[in-house]
Amino acid sequence: MIIAVIGAGRCSAKVAQAAELVGRELARRGATLVCGGLGGVMEAACRGAKLEGGLTIGILPGFSRHEANPHVDIRVVTGLGEARNVIVVRTAQAVIAVDGEYGTLSEIAYALKLGIPVVGLNTWQLTREGRLVSDIVEAATPAEAVDKALALVK
Amino acid sequence: MIIAVIGAGRCSAKVAQAAELVGRELARRGATLVCGGLGGVMEAACRGAKLEGGLTIGILPGFSRHEANPHVDIRVVTGLGEARNVIVVRTAQAVIAVDGEYGTLSEIAYALKLGIPVVGLNTWQLTREGRLVSDIVEAATPAEAVDKALALVK
Amino acid sequence: MIIAVIGAGRCSAKVAQAAELVGRELARRGATLVCGGLGGVMEAACRGAKLEGGLTIGILPGFSRHEANPHVDIRVVTGLGEARNVIVVRTAQAVIAVDGEYGTLSEIAYALKLGIPVVGLNTWQLTREGRLVSDIVEAATPAEAVDKALALVK
Amino acid sequence: MIIAVIGAGRCSAKVAQAAELVGRELARRGATLVCGGLGGVMEAACRGAKLEGGLTIGILPGFSRHEANPHVDIRVVTGLGEARNVIVVRTAQAVIAVDGEYGTLSEIAYALKLGIPVVGLNTWQLTREGRLVSDIVEAATPAEAVDKALALVK
Repeated sequence: MIIAVIGAGRCSAKVAQAAELVGRELARRGATLVCGGLGGVMEAACRGAKLEGGLTIGILPGFSRHEANPHVDIRVVTGLGEARNVIVVRTAQAVIAVDGEYGTLSEIAYALKLGIPVVGLNTWQLTREGRLVSDIVEAATPAEAVDKALALVK
Repeated sequence: MIIAVIGAGRCSAKVAQAAELVGRELARRGATLVCGGLGGVMEAACRGAKLEGGLTIGILPGFSRHEANPHVDIRVVTGLGEARNVIVVRTAQAVIAVDGEYGTLSEIAYALKLGIPVVGLNTWQLTREGRLVSDIVEAATPAEAVDKALALVK
Repeated sequence: MIIAVIGAGRCSAKVAQAAELVGRELARRGATLVCGGLGGVMEAACRGAKLEGGLTIGILPGFSRHEANPHVDIRVVTGLGEARNVIVVRTAQAVIAVDGEYGTLSEIAYALKLGIPVVGLNTWQLTREGRLVSDIVEAATPAEAVDKALALVK
Repeated sequence: MIIAVIGAGRCSAKVAQAAELVGRELARRGATLVCGGLGGVMEAACRGAKLEGGLTIGILPGFSRHEANPHVDIRVVTGLGEARNVIVVRTAQAVIAVDGEYGTLSEIAYALKLGIPVVGLNTWQLTREGRLVSDIVEAATPAEAVDKALALVK
């Protein structure tokens, strides 16, 4: 089982704590974590996964393996810039969005387009014509986000 | 001046009419149109641009030039699937979103991340914690969308 | 008709002269030129095409339209680094390689894999087990290269 | 240490045997194997690595994890077609080419452009103006190929 954790490359301590708990919970259940490999939410989630002995993959945007955060086991160097977001999403069987900015929104959109389940933890809400589109499955806690993501994997 | 028109590959007649008017207005003002090169909003916008003698570019997702709609002048064949959305956005100086589904949302997100202005015509609204994020400049008519997009080009 | 001219981003005056003549000949026959959009062979070929009133497309590797040489009409900004080479090749109906280094070799290889004809002007030769593989159609002059490329378009 | 093994998606039994030995030797020395994730040389190399308990990564060209050969541990789904070749190369610290066709040649060219060492086992030879360009380090046996690749990692 392989689950993406997506979120911004910089984040508050509170968001990082949530991301770390998501990483921990994923590793405890034996899921592999894939992410964009950089800092912020990505780094916190990888750190959490490693604390529980999990496996982490970073799909890096730049040209160097050295841009990965220190908790990435498998560093995939794409050189594709933001276009690597598509790979993060396609590689996963479900996506957990933690907070996040516009890069995260692009990944949420790709996942929903591709039919990959998205669980959101305090992330974007999508509306059309004033009405909420409910394709993002909301979770109230990191553990609930992981529970829901794993349950949604086909 | 080069402006992207983004929207779904299938759309209602009403949405197509709006997209065609966007294409017409862009060509009248001398702007080049870039899009994903397929049907729906993309095709309608290209048709509008060609009716006014404009130039149209299609950044195609697949492996064949033949997937382009018949109103594309320059067919760029990427073979990158949805990852080509990034190229549509990067190539443009401003983006006009007409209606649209999740592929369109991914392009809106990329543009906002990259600091490229986005004008929306009956498209997605973005909210965080129940509050509207107002980075998409809303327009009420195709002509207003084009006016606003051209005014926002740096 | 759309033909790629590929070659290094820096080149000798002699190679640039050949590339300029290739660009001129392509434009005289009404073919659109696609290339990587940068300097050296790409710039010389675009300059030649513009001297004859042709249309030029540059598939740029970086994040800015400003990296294009001044003779590119249509600047496609990919942000994909070297991965943009695939797009240059896929967009063309035939490829003319002028001299060239390893980036050019990657494009020759892609074209041959995809079944797109490659004409070589003083470029790489490919050998396996000591024997020349003759899939690159050799040309002795720029005019001959253009003749052969146009004749090979399906 | 992460080493790419590149080669065609279909190959003779003799070539597969060589690729399997390359995979075995890499795993014995503790190197992770990255490849394009499909059949032929890629599958044989992964099988060899798994026989020795190694770790294997497949950078897949298509849209589905199910296209990976059964010996790939980490399946990275790119959806980029042949453009994924750049990622295989960038992710590695050295490349071993086993036999191979034009896709392999594109990867050799990318690696040499990027300054990543390439060891060749009965693969392409590159010539310019009738003279061999010796940037591919030739090896006579799978074990020698692995020795040389590991020695060349910076």
